[in-house]
Amino acid sequence: MSVTPPTPLGPGGEFDRLRAVFARLGPRVAAVGDDAALVTIDGAALALSCDLVVEGRHFRRDWLTPGEIGWRACAAALSDLAAVAAEPLGVLAAVGVPEGSEGTFLEEVMEGVGAAAAACGASVWGGDLVRAPQVTMDVMVVGRASHPVRRRGARAGDGVWVTGALGAPAAAVAVWEAGANPGPGLRDRFARPVPRVAEAWWLRDRGATAMLDVSDGLVGDAGHLAAASGVAVEIEVERVPVHEAVTTDPAVTADEAVRYALTGGEEYELLVALPASFADAAAFAKSFGIALTRVGTVRAGTGVSVMRDGRQIEVGAGFSHF
Amino acid sequence: MSVTPPTPLGPGGEFDRLRAVFARLGPRVAAVGDDAALVTIDGAALALSCDLVVEGRHFRRDWLTPGEIGWRACAAALSDLAAVAAEPLGVLAAVGVPEGSEGTFLEEVMEGVGAAAAACGASVWGGDLVRAPQVTMDVMVVGRASHPVRRRGARAGDGVWVTGALGAPAAAVAVWEAGANPGPGLRDRFARPVPRVAEAWWLRDRGATAMLDVSDGLVGDAGHLAAASGVAVEIEVERVPVHEAVTTDPAVTADEAVRYALTGGEEYELLVALPASFADAAAFAKSFGIALTRVGTVRAGTGVSVMRDGRQIEVGAGFSHF
Repeated sequence: MSVTPPTPLGPGGEFDRLRAVFARLGPRVAAVGDDAALVTIDGAALALSCDLVVEGRHFRRDWLTPGEIGWRACAAALSDLAAVAAEPLGVLAAVGVPEGSEGTFLEEVMEGVGAAAAACGASVWGGDLVRAPQVTMDVMVVGRASHPVRRRGARAGDGVWVTGALGAPAAAVAVWEAGANPGPGLRDRFARPVPRVAEAWWLRDRGATAMLDVSDGLVGDAGHLAAASGVAVEIEVERVPVHEAVTTDPAVTADEAVRYALTGGEEYELLVALPASFADAAAFAKSFGIALTRVGTVRAGTGVSVMRDGRQIEVGAGFSHF
Repeated sequence: MSVTPPTPLGPGGEFDRLRAVFARLGPRVAAVGDDAALVTIDGAALALSCDLVVEGRHFRRDWLTPGEIGWRACAAALSDLAAVAAEPLGVLAAVGVPEGSEGTFLEEVMEGVGAAAAACGASVWGGDLVRAPQVTMDVMVVGRASHPVRRRGARAGDGVWVTGALGAPAAAVAVWEAGANPGPGLRDRFARPVPRVAEAWWLRDRGATAMLDVSDGLVGDAGHLAAASGVAVEIEVERVPVHEAVTTDPAVTADEAVRYALTGGEEYELLVALPASFADAAAFAKSFGIALTRVGTVRAGTGVSVMRDGRQIEVGAGFSHF
């Protein structure tokens, strides 16, 4: 059996806590720091991850149908497999269900889990069912990772690219929290994220040097890529693709739209470093029906700088799961 | 890749819900019904499981130290690997931590996870960290299962055996819930359960025909073994080993002691069917320092009967996680 050595994490309170945990556990910790743990067991190269979501923190029950709660929890975990270019095989879903959510609530949640798994070619291999004060879900995912792409590997001069368009999940949450209902374009991006599994394989096959999914926000995740690869990342605000549902929403200002796209979490798009010579974005868009957009450049150095009109600007903190 | 076909579950509300889920998911579900999912990926035979615990439902924070919370959650999940005679390799721990539990709470929880993993030969491969209203833990475990023992396989005439001695975790909870503090013998069995990993390999090598861990209570888990194997299980109350810390506790009546041993959950001992010819219990006790006790017999038929003085008696429901 072999496991990958630890990968450095970017800045942030959640990651300070994790660094303290890893320091305390010492040699008992392995394979951490990428979106999924990469281990080889008896010749089988595997990627493993889990993603915990709790009602009230990650979603509210009046925002989503039971099926969407299950889909979203499963898709979030599967996105960790996409992030390392793994092939999803199976999921185990642990579900905590409050008293009073009887009827078909659990079946509908699990139907959403099964649908998200099936959409990525994976089966449901089991799980756990308990009572909990809030709807609580932890989805564990198992994939084949014969040729993974990790967070480390980006080199100065690489282009930094992102799949799809950003900002809609954060905008949807902002609308809900303001007491209104987001339009279907915003809502759908929050409720039914799509793990970019086949997109990740395509990017790997075009020479991706480092990759992760956008779960903490574009700037925060660029920080992880920079820390893991030992490089700096420069993002040009003008290039960042903001989702049409955000830019066309009359309630969202232009400044808010950019902020959501730069710092909004739970996008489940891919952030990827590609060689400077890469020029196949049009072919990507044709294959997958979503954009692949260059948003910046890998430089020598450390950290992330966000540039507007050639000048560095400050952006707020990214989304924190912790 | 191959997966095991589903195994039937025993009676109970939690299992009725799971049956409804599996029926709805149809062919998208595989490998469910044993303590761990058994899958073969690229020639590697694996066992996978996860176990979700929530503060207030499975434990209280004033009952356990942070390290014990982590140990117990990890040991419970590893016990699912022991139950199929797998070899633990790695764990991923998803932890939800409330606001206000700052300081070294998380590090201590994860140190308990790491210690339980290390005690079974496994490493910590990662996890997830989120905010949650209660301490919430889901531990995902991965093991090698070249020669698993499943819940199915017991034959009429086999003996039914249990490792260790039962009743202490339920007695500890009863004492806490009555507002007192359990003695160290009771408390330790609740706070620091020991997965019976090497014991399971030993039992497999002596011809175990069916096995699972006692997490729902002896009678409830005997029901799973009976349903999975298509047999009846007869348990003789007089034979059931009640933990010394229960029988010697002045606050526990003799009737309560037997009830805790028959129906108390979260024991994490092994319930195993062995050929009628098996006669090596003394060697087991010498090897592992715990008893291996015959508690009953596999018969043709269905369901579980509990006998006292040769007559069938009724026992209350087992522990329900749901």
